[in-house]
Amino acid sequence: MEPEVQNTATPAALGFRMPAEWEPHDGCWMGWPERPDLWYGNAKHAQAAFVEVATTIGRFEPVTIIASAAQWPTARAMLPREIRVVETSFNDAWLRDIGPTFVVRDAPSGKSEDGREVAGIDWAFNSWGGELGGLYADWTQDALVARKILEVEKLPRFPHPMILEGGSIHVDGEGTCLTTEECLLNPNRNPHMPKAAIQAQLQAYLNVQKVIWLKHGLFGDTDTDGHIDNMACFARPGVVLLAWTDDETDPQYERSVEAYEQLIREKDAKGRALEVHKLHLPTPLTYTQEEVDGLAPSSDVRVKTDVGGRMAGSYVNFYIANGGIVAPGFGDIRHDVGAKQKLEEVFPEHKVVMVPARNILVNGGNIHCITQQQPARFPALIQVAETVREDTVPLDGPPLPDFTSEEVEAARERLNAKGIGPEEVPAV
Amino acid sequence: MEPEVQNTATPAALGFRMPAEWEPHDGCWMGWPERPDLWYGNAKHAQAAFVEVATTIGRFEPVTIIASAAQWPTARAMLPREIRVVETSFNDAWLRDIGPTFVVRDAPSGKSEDGREVAGIDWAFNSWGGELGGLYADWTQDALVARKILEVEKLPRFPHPMILEGGSIHVDGEGTCLTTEECLLNPNRNPHMPKAAIQAQLQAYLNVQKVIWLKHGLFGDTDTDGHIDNMACFARPGVVLLAWTDDETDPQYERSVEAYEQLIREKDAKGRALEVHKLHLPTPLTYTQEEVDGLAPSSDVRVKTDVGGRMAGSYVNFYIANGGIVAPGFGDIRHDVGAKQKLEEVFPEHKVVMVPARNILVNGGNIHCITQQQPARFPALIQVAETVREDTVPLDGPPLPDFTSEEVEAARERLNAKGIGPEEVPAV
Repeated sequence: MEPEVQNTATPAALGFRMPAEWEPHDGCWMGWPERPDLWYGNAKHAQAAFVEVATTIGRFEPVTIIASAAQWPTARAMLPREIRVVETSFNDAWLRDIGPTFVVRDAPSGKSEDGREVAGIDWAFNSWGGELGGLYADWTQDALVARKILEVEKLPRFPHPMILEGGSIHVDGEGTCLTTEECLLNPNRNPHMPKAAIQAQLQAYLNVQKVIWLKHGLFGDTDTDGHIDNMACFARPGVVLLAWTDDETDPQYERSVEAYEQLIREKDAKGRALEVHKLHLPTPLTYTQEEVDGLAPSSDVRVKTDVGGRMAGSYVNFYIANGGIVAPGFGDIRHDVGAKQKLEEVFPEHKVVMVPARNILVNGGNIHCITQQQPARFPALIQVAETVREDTVPLDGPPLPDFTSEEVEAARERLNAKGIGPEEVPAV
Repeated sequence: MEPEVQNTATPAALGFRMPAEWEPHDGCWMGWPERPDLWYGNAKHAQAAFVEVATTIGRFEPVTIIASAAQWPTARAMLPREIRVVETSFNDAWLRDIGPTFVVRDAPSGKSEDGREVAGIDWAFNSWGGELGGLYADWTQDALVARKILEVEKLPRFPHPMILEGGSIHVDGEGTCLTTEECLLNPNRNPHMPKAAIQAQLQAYLNVQKVIWLKHGLFGDTDTDGHIDNMACFARPGVVLLAWTDDETDPQYERSVEAYEQLIREKDAKGRALEVHKLHLPTPLTYTQEEVDGLAPSSDVRVKTDVGGRMAGSYVNFYIANGGIVAPGFGDIRHDVGAKQKLEEVFPEHKVVMVPARNILVNGGNIHCITQQQPARFPALIQVAETVREDTVPLDGPPLPDFTSEEVEAARERLNAKGIGPEEVPAV
């Protein structure tokens, strides 16, 4: 592998930057869920959901799944063979948070045929809060994942001792970072670092000039302490999607209004005002008896799940693939349809595909949280249209627990059909 | 990853062939030894020896070490950072035998700038003999290694249900395979397959037209049942190196004479007579009390090591890297020097480097057994001279147990010096 870049030489100083998620990818990294104390029903529901997400992303770009030694044969058997399965240990399968944050710089020649160099930032990790609210007690394997991925890919590594998860930052690829104070300034991450110091590190490592700090993430997203990727994201430079609710009695309402009011007054690094699109939440989702009872006892897991407790469901937690948007659906027909239509409006050049994601959400995150894009080494060679193989991979995931399989099937057919009538779309 | 090639389509039928070891490599695969019941002294001596072999090969070409999850941090810390370390489980670290047998075919265009396609054969494996003399009882992880390597490299896989280890075959890249009946016809491998059936599979998978069957491997090589790679190898088309001894009282003498008499009468696939070079064995090496007592008890290991028992030491068990020969030394000054000079004669365009290898040999194999070359995708781009970084990696391995460190140092200096006098070279 290439030599590590020393910590004294930051990505920005060397000309690297974190690209936007919509820039061309060489592929997507995901993990293979397995822990029965984190994923109910011995992880079988989660595994089926991950298979569907991976298969769907695989319609647009290459996917690599990392799996433990114990689960490698199972993962290999359950996944389509065009998906690469690489043995790698981890404590849980949230590649957004434990994978590297990839950065790029143009080849010295500046010629597109010479492509660009790709490297990875390896942030410190403490299980979303360490001794103060971390989700499990042992994260020793998680802490090695980014480095192992970079070794597999023979890419240089920028190690950084600051605690940071990939889900707590979004960038527009043109100098702007979006994040939340609730997470990055939480005393369970980097209590010794004041806001200015954290911002300086974001600037030096992501190569951004402007950091937009929302106060809060999504209501109920206590697992991550308010990751931005469940609350808001860039859709393209100058355009933000924001988790929204029209229900003034929902505790999320205040958070969404607060963020909206801030965002419409912000300027990005290029001095542009932001266009803010509201993406309505699903009807509040709560844990069922089966989902709670189906968790195995654990001495390692620190978070307690209660029947009736609200899940941090949000359509903002989607993944941007090459030419595709892979978004969570919840079997909430009204809001699923509205979210899909909104995404199609905001991403007119992408194909939007919604996959059932409750069985990911039950453990606190969603599609964006379980994925990590690897930017393309040769962006000019990424041909989006040819990599979309729509007909080969049917949407055949598990039924969603809140609906009968017939309801889900009907909803899914409508979601994937053209010409959805406006009467079915919630006013957002 | 690319789709697997179906077993009905053989490499030869598709135009693939196994290249000779001296053809350009993209790199070399090795494993990281760790088992205290297989490697004495809690594997620390073996690890140091593997570090030296990997570092030396790394002077000539990229090296990847696979290591278990438990040992990954140790391997990463002990190895130079230019060596890639990839987490992969296995039962023991003999990549020649558990890794893929790589095959290549020219790109359809036939133009050198389009390079060639690389794929891998994934033979079945049974721990060198299964229930009838296998070395350990559980080889479930070994059996997955070839497939995992091919997934990491995104290369197509030719699975084959025949039991075969890479160390039991050598090819000249021009249609000839060299092997032993002692191993391939052993009833502990493929008892249902007659010789002609095995030969047909070698022809179909390696794409060879001629298989030369020696009767025996090296005396004492009971672990592998006589692998060819401890007995004889091709140095280039038409040229064979053969393990030899002048000592008529040595049980190996008869085997060497038998093989010599056969080889000088054989023709290769191109109809050439073979030029046979004798490579004299080291003075017989035997297990010490420390090496035997230093093995941890095991319910899995089936082979017993006795103090005074003879080790299957042979200089034939070397690795051909891009521009380099990495050969085992045993601290046997007279024969080490002779072997090094012989290798320099036979490989005039390679730099021959000898590394202390007793701490590999103690577990039954040597440098060739622990390595697996991956052929170059673009052979025309492999520039041998520039990849040799001689001055950066000193030969600083562990002292050899049979000699004082001063003796070893003196011998090593002489080995690496130019102008060794002929009086020090044994008559072979």
